[in-house]
Amino acid sequence: MKVANIQMRPEFLDREANLDHAARLLEQAREASIVVLPELFNTGYNFQEKGQVEGLAEDATSGPTSQMLQEIARDRDQYIAAGYAELYGGKVYNSQLFVGPEGFISSYKKVHLFYNEKKFFSSGSKLEVHSIGDINVGLMVCFDWFFPETMRSLMLMGADLMLHSANLVLPFCPNAMVTRCVENKVNAITSNRVGEEFGLRYIGMSQITAHDGTIVHRSPESEEEVWVADIDPMSGRDKSMNPLNNIIEDRRPDVYKLD
Amino acid sequence: MKVANIQMRPEFLDREANLDHAARLLEQAREASIVVLPELFNTGYNFQEKGQVEGLAEDATSGPTSQMLQEIARDRDQYIAAGYAELYGGKVYNSQLFVGPEGFISSYKKVHLFYNEKKFFSSGSKLEVHSIGDINVGLMVCFDWFFPETMRSLMLMGADLMLHSANLVLPFCPNAMVTRCVENKVNAITSNRVGEEFGLRYIGMSQITAHDGTIVHRSPESEEEVWVADIDPMSGRDKSMNPLNNIIEDRRPDVYKLD
Repeated sequence: MKVANIQMRPEFLDREANLDHAARLLEQAREASIVVLPELFNTGYNFQEKGQVEGLAEDATSGPTSQMLQEIARDRDQYIAAGYAELYGGKVYNSQLFVGPEGFISSYKKVHLFYNEKKFFSSGSKLEVHSIGDINVGLMVCFDWFFPETMRSLMLMGADLMLHSANLVLPFCPNAMVTRCVENKVNAITSNRVGEEFGLRYIGMSQITAHDGTIVHRSPESEEEVWVADIDPMSGRDKSMNPLNNIIEDRRPDVYKLD
Repeated sequence: MKVANIQMRPEFLDREANLDHAARLLEQAREASIVVLPELFNTGYNFQEKGQVEGLAEDATSGPTSQMLQEIARDRDQYIAAGYAELYGGKVYNSQLFVGPEGFISSYKKVHLFYNEKKFFSSGSKLEVHSIGDINVGLMVCFDWFFPETMRSLMLMGADLMLHSANLVLPFCPNAMVTRCVENKVNAITSNRVGEEFGLRYIGMSQITAHDGTIVHRSPESEEEVWVADIDPMSGRDKSMNPLNNIIEDRRPDVYKLD
């Protein structure tokens, strides 16, 4: 199955320009069945005051970002995951929209908020796995990677492939995704942004990671890139490592102290 | 505080030779306050039949390995963690002996057994954290690293510094320890072996890893090495990452699905 990550450089607070730009990049990913865009790809990230994000937050189904992505997904028979500021029940969330050939599927509200995001967003309270035919995808936004419980939960909920929209600033995530994919025997698509905003530098290095730890592709650190790769999203579904180890059965919840 | 890892090449099934050899290597680590030896440093690893390990399994306090390490620890005012085959209640465990200036402290029975170990060893059912003055150390044997729940539990139990005795054959652990130390904000000493036994090649690369992801030292892939490093074992005790994130408080057990 062809999947794509889109590493882009959003213009801060310029949604119209970002949607136009993303549409052009999505053109280059038209052969992919699943495409992942970065966190907050349509607004930029480093908000300086709450009004900036409140002014751009939008509805998960009727907002302009959702409308554009739904149309593209329908036209191209694609699934698209993309980060945006969601307005829901009077609150603003750092969300990931997930749309497909039939339109809107879900809007995952980021659970683990990083640093100043806590000033601007409410946090979500539900991890999500969705089925695309036989494949189960887990939804993740940026800092969710940091907590091993996130991908562990998504794997135990059945996810084969993680769709991870990011705006990474810490250096650890690309290598950590190798650990995360191996420990859970899952595949992952991490789409990050590039550029700089008010002294915050994003690290690029979007990555497609396989369940056996192979880095299928890693994008450059500071250039935009659309990368299409051919992967088997379900390659890690059999959780045995060898005839005697199985990464689910070998867990010891009776021993762990996770409270 | 000075800590040491000892990367050695045990002789298969020759306990006397291994104890002599380890004693010489421990001489080179005499200035360290904490020393970690590999998993099964005194017997070798790749047993072909159960009788081989049964013949070498020994008591945690009165056995020759424990007696030697207790004597060295007492003489040098040191703490030593070292992997060995433990005979306990008629069963054999892949254990890590932990001794100090006052003698025997504990014998941690490896919880997560890898591959053929399941044919030769019973698995433990308790994770352990022990205090050395102000420092809390968590005990780990090899494949325990693979399960994020291990270090997560040890950190939540209060461990500042992981003492990790290993016989690594998969390539992932050294880089994964960066992820593990960062996600838990802890320090770790991983001591691995080198050499080959019946087609199983051990990867060396013993490593001292700091809570901020710094690789303080990584040993070579196939040579023995004793490495003494000066670290602050408690450097990660404050679990805040920045003024708004704390790696314990930001966990969301209400959201995770870890059953």
